[in-house]
Amino acid sequence: MIDVVDAPALAQEIVGAIRRVVGPAPVALHEPRFCGNEWRYVKACLDSSVVSSVGSFVDRFEADLAEYTGAKFAVAVVNGTAALHVALRLAGVRPGDEVLLPALTFAATANAVIYCGAIPHFVDSEERTLGMDPAALRDYLRTVTDVGRDHCVNRSTGRIIRAVVPMHTFGHPVDIEAIVATARDFHLAVVEDAAESLGSTVCGQHTGTFGALGTLSFNGNKTITTGGGGAILTNDRDIARRAKHLTTTAKVPHRWEYRHDEIGFNYRMPNLNAALGCAQLEQLPGFLSAQRRLFRRYSDAFANFREMHVMAEPPGCTSNYWLQTLVLDATVAGERDTVLAVSNDAGIMTRPAWVLMHRLRQFEGCPRMDLRVAESLESRLINLPSSPHLVAMDS
Amino acid sequence: MIDVVDAPALAQEIVGAIRRVVGPAPVALHEPRFCGNEWRYVKACLDSSVVSSVGSFVDRFEADLAEYTGAKFAVAVVNGTAALHVALRLAGVRPGDEVLLPALTFAATANAVIYCGAIPHFVDSEERTLGMDPAALRDYLRTVTDVGRDHCVNRSTGRIIRAVVPMHTFGHPVDIEAIVATARDFHLAVVEDAAESLGSTVCGQHTGTFGALGTLSFNGNKTITTGGGGAILTNDRDIARRAKHLTTTAKVPHRWEYRHDEIGFNYRMPNLNAALGCAQLEQLPGFLSAQRRLFRRYSDAFANFREMHVMAEPPGCTSNYWLQTLVLDATVAGERDTVLAVSNDAGIMTRPAWVLMHRLRQFEGCPRMDLRVAESLESRLINLPSSPHLVAMDS
Repeated sequence: MIDVVDAPALAQEIVGAIRRVVGPAPVALHEPRFCGNEWRYVKACLDSSVVSSVGSFVDRFEADLAEYTGAKFAVAVVNGTAALHVALRLAGVRPGDEVLLPALTFAATANAVIYCGAIPHFVDSEERTLGMDPAALRDYLRTVTDVGRDHCVNRSTGRIIRAVVPMHTFGHPVDIEAIVATARDFHLAVVEDAAESLGSTVCGQHTGTFGALGTLSFNGNKTITTGGGGAILTNDRDIARRAKHLTTTAKVPHRWEYRHDEIGFNYRMPNLNAALGCAQLEQLPGFLSAQRRLFRRYSDAFANFREMHVMAEPPGCTSNYWLQTLVLDATVAGERDTVLAVSNDAGIMTRPAWVLMHRLRQFEGCPRMDLRVAESLESRLINLPSSPHLVAMDS
Repeated sequence: MIDVVDAPALAQEIVGAIRRVVGPAPVALHEPRFCGNEWRYVKACLDSSVVSSVGSFVDRFEADLAEYTGAKFAVAVVNGTAALHVALRLAGVRPGDEVLLPALTFAATANAVIYCGAIPHFVDSEERTLGMDPAALRDYLRTVTDVGRDHCVNRSTGRIIRAVVPMHTFGHPVDIEAIVATARDFHLAVVEDAAESLGSTVCGQHTGTFGALGTLSFNGNKTITTGGGGAILTNDRDIARRAKHLTTTAKVPHRWEYRHDEIGFNYRMPNLNAALGCAQLEQLPGFLSAQRRLFRRYSDAFANFREMHVMAEPPGCTSNYWLQTLVLDATVAGERDTVLAVSNDAGIMTRPAWVLMHRLRQFEGCPRMDLRVAESLESRLINLPSSPHLVAMDS
């Protein structure tokens, strides 16, 4: 443990507050914990010899996800990026289209747009949710687009804006209903990037089920993990059928013939990973309740800090509190990097928000609206250690 | 078990010969078997909580693969298709290029070319190896291309032919040295699709290590499996470094910052799957020896059939005998579908070769040479049950 005595006072105080919640030992940002049927199911999978892309745990995981989220269909895939790629394709995104997405997101959201041959178009965030700002989006689209009978054209590029990808930042639901309403008025397909928000709801409805399609991630850092994995959610039977087909090499079912009827993808989730997922999903209620308790602990620990607060779920929403987030006031934004350095030096893993997409050189030339709130948030967000087991042993 | 008395005599005799090798019970085409350290490593992985994309089993699996194949570097990825996609990119394939590959292959080989924005260009096979015919390829390229100082142009399309992707069919090594020589003369990068040939060598050198890059697959039906997985092999340190970067979202290493310096892919192999792979790789010598014994048994069983033979490894090569293959003479090619129907009805899983790529509607318009040998082989190949454990209990 590195001595923090010489660090600036504010950073020291913040590290002290975090330590009051997480204890003195080194602590990761988010680690999975396997304390249910994980080993039993994985062993059953190994014993069956069916570890690969077709298997009963895949079927069960898809059924369990559909039941849990309330989506009519869930298609398990190899990771959240793959889910988003195929979801965008099925939402009608074609080469040369533009797709609206938040500048404040993980690179995979923008990469998936590129995989479709489309162009990311960056949207500002709102402080209240950390997600896409629906009012700013509507104003912006009114100003810069021509709306036809069934499509919306970016007047300055001449390209069709085909879809919008709201993302639920760190698990906090975006204002999805307002975004869906805006999307309807501008003929945009909604693909919800719910990679971070398994367990988060808006008025009781699960995130990822408001758009035409939604996507989940089960990467190792997520609330539940399959090692690597993702899923596509939809209420449309035909889209679900197409999603399964496209993610399983587009092979035409036949007893022995190997014929594929379009360019498909090898995006299948292996049965081994689905076995882990089935057990993790059983644990989800416990993880969610622990993450909520962890939020309360952090809130208490930071209650007396006047220049920052711990991000709370937006009104009317239930957040999974995937990554606990300290939101600095603008007055102390300049301290962010010192806090990151001091806390990481002290063995407490913290991180800032992602570098905004439009600052990455591969996306520099992409269209974007004024991003002042996202740019402000980028300088003021710090994710805190968030593993559910940090509080799982007590109530 | 369906009675085969009414089936045509030849099909009945073939099923009888297969049964003499595999016994009376229903039998799959190729199933994995976990009889080594699989449980132990997978459990250790779960116990460590490190199941996702960074972990010691990934590092170990990559080191073990490099050691086993003799490649200087191995990069583990999510499946063989992903490996091929990134290998082609790193071989210099750009949108609008053409890439030569066999018409007789699994669709993933051609799909990976499409993912690069390039155009598959189909090459004929030779009977001796079931793989790309280097002499026919050389004659063809002499006829249809203009060779510049450092590139080769398809005269009829005007496009650069950038690379050639030989594939080791069912584990039998293609004539890779002749293909590498032809590729050198025509300025083509060689990317070896060794998805099926882990354990197969040419003059003692492992397949997948002759080209600039090679790719492996560990799908559930392969000689060893990780559930789903693949790897990129190369002897070039810079290519290996680039392969790791591109397959791990192109994130720039930093203690906390999330910055990506190019469009990357989420193609990481989870640690959970690598744990399985480490144990399976330990078992590989036993699997290979069993598959070789299985070949001898099939050879004996079919010794008295005058109109067909079981495919043997090409001279100078060691085959892994991944999928045992019955090669019908042209005189009985018309019986193929009857044999497939009768054997599958009898609970013996058999399959034909893949429908040739140029017959799939998505590749119909792609350039191709005369494919007469591939077309003949397509009508005459039948894969037989090939699991190593079919003979593993005896010597």
